Amino acid sequence: MSAFPPDSASVARQVPLPTPFALQAGGELRGAEVAVESYGRLSPARDNAILLFTGLSASAHAAAHPGDTTPGWWEPMIGPGRAFDTERYHVISVNSLGSCFGSTGPGSTDPATGKPYGEAFPELRVEDIARASQAAVEASGIERLHAVVGTSLGGMTALAHAALFPGKARFLVSVSGALNASAYAVATRSQQREIVGAALRGFPGAPSVGQAMRWARKIGVLSYVGSSLLEQRFGRDQTEPFAGRASGTAFEVENWLEHLAQKFEHQFDPWSYWHISRAMDLFDFGEHGGTADGESPGRRRTAASAARAAARFRVEEALVIGVHEDILFPLVQQRAIADTLKVAGVKTELVELHSAYGHDAFLTETALFTPVLRNFLGQGRESATSRPSHPALDSLSQ
Amino acid sequence: MSAFPPDSASVARQVPLPTPFALQAGGELRGAEVAVESYGRLSPARDNAILLFTGLSASAHAAAHPGDTTPGWWEPMIGPGRAFDTERYHVISVNSLGSCFGSTGPGSTDPATGKPYGEAFPELRVEDIARASQAAVEASGIERLHAVVGTSLGGMTALAHAALFPGKARFLVSVSGALNASAYAVATRSQQREIVGAALRGFPGAPSVGQAMRWARKIGVLSYVGSSLLEQRFGRDQTEPFAGRASGTAFEVENWLEHLAQKFEHQFDPWSYWHISRAMDLFDFGEHGGTADGESPGRRRTAASAARAAARFRVEEALVIGVHEDILFPLVQQRAIADTLKVAGVKTELVELHSAYGHDAFLTETALFTPVLRNFLGQGRESATSRPSHPALDSLSQ
Repeated sequence: MSAFPPDSASVARQVPLPTPFALQAGGELRGAEVAVESYGRLSPARDNAILLFTGLSASAHAAAHPGDTTPGWWEPMIGPGRAFDTERYHVISVNSLGSCFGSTGPGSTDPATGKPYGEAFPELRVEDIARASQAAVEASGIERLHAVVGTSLGGMTALAHAALFPGKARFLVSVSGALNASAYAVATRSQQREIVGAALRGFPGAPSVGQAMRWARKIGVLSYVGSSLLEQRFGRDQTEPFAGRASGTAFEVENWLEHLAQKFEHQFDPWSYWHISRAMDLFDFGEHGGTADGESPGRRRTAASAARAAARFRVEEALVIGVHEDILFPLVQQRAIADTLKVAGVKTELVELHSAYGHDAFLTETALFTPVLRNFLGQGRESATSRPSHPALDSLSQ
Repeated sequence: MSAFPPDSASVARQVPLPTPFALQAGGELRGAEVAVESYGRLSPARDNAILLFTGLSASAHAAAHPGDTTPGWWEPMIGPGRAFDTERYHVISVNSLGSCFGSTGPGSTDPATGKPYGEAFPELRVEDIARASQAAVEASGIERLHAVVGTSLGGMTALAHAALFPGKARFLVSVSGALNASAYAVATRSQQREIVGAALRGFPGAPSVGQAMRWARKIGVLSYVGSSLLEQRFGRDQTEPFAGRASGTAFEVENWLEHLAQKFEHQFDPWSYWHISRAMDLFDFGEHGGTADGESPGRRRTAASAARAAARFRVEEALVIGVHEDILFPLVQQRAIADTLKVAGVKTELVELHSAYGHDAFLTETALFTPVLRNFLGQGRESATSRPSHPALDSLSQ
């Protein structure tokens, strides 16, 4: 699986953040750090770096490297000749601030108390993830990134980065991201947090934390994958008539969900899950555009404020990729990102793919994403963006 | 709201079932009964009765009547001049066997112990709901129904009724029903049952029953309503920055879900919820078609077995209504019902509607359903069914 060359410059490291590290919502962290992996050599001019922002639950381990030869979460995309060609680019992958895979988060020791932060972890926002990652980039002496790329939450983070650090990246790629969360996304994620939060706080009638994490994960998975995938993979298959489980049935789709839930329970810190999930719901790109004269500062942020935020971008070109079957970050939101960037004068390519995997497509259907990203990130990009759509790709997985 | 005439024949009553009442999965009930309401007069020839099967959580109270003047769950559809015209029809609405609104269910007293059945309630199937309702019909001396009509679970029950009692109904109407549950439907419903079941059985780490019911209801509601409805009604509206609730946010969509959840918790018996939900997942219309020679009796039931089951129908004509935005009983399943009936030689009309309400559309967008049902159930039906589609209706709510 490993694709690194013997003379790889790929490394995993902890990068200390400036201290105190001020947070978007007013709090601060002291002695914080982020876990970073990088793949491919940084050029002498330090102009070939691509910063990769992850989804909610991923670590910085996006690809195998000599120090960790297990496949990364985007393994087929990163390596020599792959979409993120490590012969050309220096890919920097950062574990989100607030997460639990080496970056400072609720599971880390609070230097003020000597104990894990837990509930006391300060309010986290998507902007904090963007700032912490940018600090790691600057620690490598990189003045300007070739590109920022983000998937899911990472797409939101890429937009936040472009708003916070205009001119610091030439290109922007958002994969299944959003300007802000839809009402459905808020509803399903807040429900996951309600279950986990009630358990963490020991509310009356709450389940155990482990049980809460398993249920939250199952609710989450049902928002990540397309229903047609479940139909194709499981249909109505059953393992045995009644397994005596609390649902009273034993459909294989239940076994699969339980397997994913148990794996996740032992992998992810509950407070990290709660904080990052909340940050996703609270993110609103339009906040970076403020309110114009005569415009109501009402609850529903206008397309105009998003366009004003994007107008500050100094991105040369953007690529927005979405998936028709995605119910969590639906296509209408991909079009909204692209429209916002176009109105702001950013040359933008929108690619709409089909995949039964829905929101999770970028993790699994890498063969669909590879040509789109490779095209954009270098070879033949100029000619590619002159085409308005990708009908061949659009029908690949139908 | 009330639409009954002063001389209404509408009544609410308890109808005793034959005892013992044998159940599909092998158990039996003694001294069981179902709660029944009826609207409009039964004709002297007893040939104008329409049997209505409900969704998971509805009572028999589909419309107001002199004994209960509160609006019923399908109030705008039932009354003089309405889709189910009580000047012409005698509408019989039955609370599903296993439910908790007057019909025998897990909350009823088990005559063998003198205590509520609870966990000891025997395994319930959709076929049992159909049989109990048919028993109530026969208790009224009705030999043959004008029609059976069902919504959601009720659509499944109408199909089960037609398979179990061929020739007992002239017409069949399925609204947002299915031949069997999709993998997504099983996944989301089994998760609701897992939470409620763990609480009811006091599994280690389980939440309280009340909390479990609230969470299950919220998961359910997110499968009932279309995401576009949530976007239109709530968007990103917030009531206050942070209410200190376990989710850490206070979006209005959360308040709405919590309101629905609390209402449901105090309305519905948890074991009834668990049993009826399971019956929905276990229902498979194809079971009534058996396995032909040379056909694998495998887990995935074939379209052929469903067609064989439908071939036994002695229904004159069927109407299948579905909603594009329904993710729980999706349009592909409505087409499967219609195709199965057509292959079996039943004259079938399929009507595909648009509504942001998704699966719940039949409850709220009664103006969309009224002309379709009125057309089918009488006036001008012959001419209506010669039209292949309803383009005007199809675009009403887009």
